[in-house]
Amino acid sequence: MSFDRLISKIISMKNPTVAGLDPKLEYVPDYLKKSFLDEDGETLKAAAKAIFKYNQQIIDAICDIVPAVKLQAAYYEMYGHHGVKTMERTIRYARLRGMYVITDGKRNDIGATMEAYTAAHLGSCTIGESECEPFGADALTVNGYLGTDGIAPLLPVCKQRDRGIFVLCKTSNPSSGEFQDLLIDGVPLYARMGDKCEEWGADTIGAYGYSAVGAVVGATYPEQLVSLRERMPHTMFLVPGYGAQGGGAAGIAGGFDKNGLGAIVNSSRAILCAYKKEQCDERDFAGAARREAIRMREDLMTYIKIG
Amino acid sequence: MSFDRLISKIISMKNPTVAGLDPKLEYVPDYLKKSFLDEDGETLKAAAKAIFKYNQQIIDAICDIVPAVKLQAAYYEMYGHHGVKTMERTIRYARLRGMYVITDGKRNDIGATMEAYTAAHLGSCTIGESECEPFGADALTVNGYLGTDGIAPLLPVCKQRDRGIFVLCKTSNPSSGEFQDLLIDGVPLYARMGDKCEEWGADTIGAYGYSAVGAVVGATYPEQLVSLRERMPHTMFLVPGYGAQGGGAAGIAGGFDKNGLGAIVNSSRAILCAYKKEQCDERDFAGAARREAIRMREDLMTYIKIG
Repeated sequence: MSFDRLISKIISMKNPTVAGLDPKLEYVPDYLKKSFLDEDGETLKAAAKAIFKYNQQIIDAICDIVPAVKLQAAYYEMYGHHGVKTMERTIRYARLRGMYVITDGKRNDIGATMEAYTAAHLGSCTIGESECEPFGADALTVNGYLGTDGIAPLLPVCKQRDRGIFVLCKTSNPSSGEFQDLLIDGVPLYARMGDKCEEWGADTIGAYGYSAVGAVVGATYPEQLVSLRERMPHTMFLVPGYGAQGGGAAGIAGGFDKNGLGAIVNSSRAILCAYKKEQCDERDFAGAARREAIRMREDLMTYIKIG
Repeated sequence: MSFDRLISKIISMKNPTVAGLDPKLEYVPDYLKKSFLDEDGETLKAAAKAIFKYNQQIIDAICDIVPAVKLQAAYYEMYGHHGVKTMERTIRYARLRGMYVITDGKRNDIGATMEAYTAAHLGSCTIGESECEPFGADALTVNGYLGTDGIAPLLPVCKQRDRGIFVLCKTSNPSSGEFQDLLIDGVPLYARMGDKCEEWGADTIGAYGYSAVGAVVGATYPEQLVSLRERMPHTMFLVPGYGAQGGGAAGIAGGFDKNGLGAIVNSSRAILCAYKKEQCDERDFAGAARREAIRMREDLMTYIKIG
């Protein structure tokens, strides 16, 4: 009922990294996708199957050194229900290999509809007398624009099933300030969203001091990371924007607490496409992903001391 | 590249209604779901197949009098990838029957990820040399909290493929004001979001004066409907909250322009579960849905004069 499970993994691996599994078909090496395209033609089904195989090998290559994966739902929906099946299978496989799984869906709605999203991604639904788990991730990213009505339905499931959420707070993109930086009585909207995260999470605080309600705060805004870390002492941060979007490890360090905890940093493309950057044999794509994950861990650990 | 197709249908049917296909398995009459549960057991697959059959009959019963359907993605995701397949099939079937289809996904992200959502729901993706359409809806609901970076990727596809989006502006729920009503220099956040909708849609204005960028404005806030209608003259409104959530037709009328256009009103449960309210034979569920759709049309048309 907090992020304790995730934080324990981070401590034992000494690595506050989450690998983003945001796979496009073009990332999958030709040798790997060929058999699927031969079998099912140039179809969404073939693409989805190839991506699952690719994800599986990435997971195998990093699961002993990276505590978590984050699946960006958009890249699975792009391949229709076949892609969504690959998302489902990837979540199960990553959990089987002991990883903590975050579904990055930025879902948002109210009341019964938000309960349906909760059941879908973090909970279960009942068919007749049987309980079925549709996706079964450990955590879900959500958007809080609709207010408490959109967040409250998630909380009972977080408590009962030891799951978590990350609420969009200050996102990493250049135009994030259009709404998020607007000042209300001198306080930016993102900070107000942060205050609500503290409120929503208040009765789910775990052993490390963090609740089940986390926040997304971009690596590209280091000053805000520092001020929000102070303002939101019980809120775990999911930090996108490392590397590709320009967020450096030195700036990210401000999002961590004095014990080197309280944040997890995402990297997607740099890990998935490391074999392209390395220009190694494409059959070594998973090995290259592992080497990039190690490089990133060392980069972060230059600035962050855990424990 | 606007909402002209939708508005034409509304005019010819004299009905500014969208039927919300937000099906829970418990809405599906026993006689209809029995064969699926017998065949596939108490599984997500059986539930998803039963729901498709149910949706199909509702669509058949209303497609000549209701211009559009809105599929709430949460209720499909709740049944895993099988449910998402039912969403896909329902979208195709509704379009085949001539209906305008809105996917209510409230999706949001930035850059390449938002492009992936766009390809998934409104566009196409390329596998080898083949173009595949994953979901193929006419319009998608989106959340604008991330700013222009989250909306811009949708616009080229709206233009090229004659699709539309509805951006969450002032939602129908009780706590929507927590963030949306906050005043920035005297202007509430929802109005600022509305101003951006006008800006984002500026070069996609169609024959009826409305752009491809619509907004979600709840039926439960009639005063805001009136003020936003004035503030956002080129923005089509999707109005949830009629009936079940307490929004009445008289109040909704303020969301329409002087020609009786510019808005479409959603009803979900009241249509889907009309047979329960009527207490008629459950085998007449689709007939009851049609009767409720007619009742709603008449209720709205008491206050709204089209043309």
